[in-house]
Amino acid sequence: MSPDPAPARTLRAATIAGVRQAIAARRTRGPVGLVPTMGALHAGHASLIERARRDCRTVVVSVFVNPLQFDRPDDLAAYPRTLDADLETCRRLGVDVMFVPDAAEMYPQPPACVVEVGRLGDHLCGKRRPGHVRGVATVVLKLFQIVQPGAAYFGEKDAQQLAVLRRMVRDLNVPVEVVGLPTVREKDGLALSSRNRRLDDGERPLAPALYRALCEIRRQVAGGADETAAIVSKAANGLPQDDRLRLEYLELVDPDELQPVEHITGPVLAAGALWVGTTRLIDNVRCEPPRGQAGTGDD
Amino acid sequence: MSPDPAPARTLRAATIAGVRQAIAARRTRGPVGLVPTMGALHAGHASLIERARRDCRTVVVSVFVNPLQFDRPDDLAAYPRTLDADLETCRRLGVDVMFVPDAAEMYPQPPACVVEVGRLGDHLCGKRRPGHVRGVATVVLKLFQIVQPGAAYFGEKDAQQLAVLRRMVRDLNVPVEVVGLPTVREKDGLALSSRNRRLDDGERPLAPALYRALCEIRRQVAGGADETAAIVSKAANGLPQDDRLRLEYLELVDPDELQPVEHITGPVLAAGALWVGTTRLIDNVRCEPPRGQAGTGDD
Repeated sequence: MSPDPAPARTLRAATIAGVRQAIAARRTRGPVGLVPTMGALHAGHASLIERARRDCRTVVVSVFVNPLQFDRPDDLAAYPRTLDADLETCRRLGVDVMFVPDAAEMYPQPPACVVEVGRLGDHLCGKRRPGHVRGVATVVLKLFQIVQPGAAYFGEKDAQQLAVLRRMVRDLNVPVEVVGLPTVREKDGLALSSRNRRLDDGERPLAPALYRALCEIRRQVAGGADETAAIVSKAANGLPQDDRLRLEYLELVDPDELQPVEHITGPVLAAGALWVGTTRLIDNVRCEPPRGQAGTGDD
Repeated sequence: MSPDPAPARTLRAATIAGVRQAIAARRTRGPVGLVPTMGALHAGHASLIERARRDCRTVVVSVFVNPLQFDRPDDLAAYPRTLDADLETCRRLGVDVMFVPDAAEMYPQPPACVVEVGRLGDHLCGKRRPGHVRGVATVVLKLFQIVQPGAAYFGEKDAQQLAVLRRMVRDLNVPVEVVGLPTVREKDGLALSSRNRRLDDGERPLAPALYRALCEIRRQVAGGADETAAIVSKAANGLPQDDRLRLEYLELVDPDELQPVEHITGPVLAAGALWVGTTRLIDNVRCEPPRGQAGTGDD
């Protein structure tokens, strides 16, 4: 069905010069698509790669656990790394080039110049993880400059990341189309995340609580509730009583500028972070207030 | 002598889409060079354009007085604008494409995402003009993304700008070679600057005082003086006594990180800003301490 047969093999480059060379040879043949990842690939990543495979002649997947976006060294150290499996996934999905640099290749010296994201980093994860959003924007801009793709693919699960990157390419005139794709979920609603594999068997059944709380918020907003404080309070109170759960935040923000919304008059993004044991999970859903007489009752 | 004949005409583009289209048609023919300017072109700019003309198949000159790098609205308003003469200069020098956007084209909304330059912006002009260095880095990154040149040309007169841009392309992996060219000077040593045309006949003879002070510093350093405070104090005291002169700063910094140097042990950048009436002039020279037994007595 695909116009492009799966390539005979997936080239693997560890250096910037190497990946640029590998792509230069292919660039003349047609569009280049980039899927930036931190590895530990799952079905969410696969959906991004499959879309890139359909859109682009050359598909590049980067695997880089970016130290600049981690606020805690223990979190960076514990982040899952499954490179052999990732290679196999990329081969299976017909990825042309994997870019797997180490930290010294990406940051030969501490960067003086970074991308600041202004108020888009003031809330949600940006408020709780100092430097996180700047670190994401900076590494993605670097990857864009290294790979020079026509399009790059990101999951909607990382809503703040996606909004910031859309804004970054607009503000800085970066000639890359940022494509956002729907969050892939387990049957019980849990958003796929590389961090899920750190949940133990006891924690796993608790993990969908965040998505359920977000759906509860969506239901309230669709039903006409418009006071954020009351909406969030009700959803938070509905979380299971369990010592292993700790809600880090649950916020309603406008979808573009990511600023808190107190009174809902249009679409909002409901986003949250929930600790399940020692694992921090994030998720979000878009909420639409009712239009005219009818709510949109949507889940 | 040049392998490229002067083009029949200089294309002028006011929009990002327009300039991208004009360049796309030429990119396949060979390297693209960019000379970013704020207009009011003088012989210093001409030296950059001539070098780009020698290096590149396609030469693009941008003329944009960037509001983001002005800390004072009156300074922005008073900045010289001589577009008709600039067009003529570009035609004469065989420029292929002039990019002349207005502020709404470059900043359709206030940018949330900007380039922060860290400690490279902490001293020299960065210390006195809040947001200036960030504004320069941001607009140049935007121009690099719009034009996608292989090389871009800047004068050494703006030493902090040049150091920051060199660092920016390295830190962010921007695939552009930043070329710095020597400051062009009047016979009396005054560095060419678009701002010079704002000097009146009484002020003009005072203007070389800054360069003379910098040369005095270079002489002291070459002669073995190594205490910055004493060196700078002597040079500042040597400035003409005139009510129209006000020294804004005179600093010695290391040439790469632009951090103040108290005790000189290697090459340093001497840089200053001097107000002459209502006109602010900047300049810099590189200073080398003596090696072995011999000083380098260099002017």
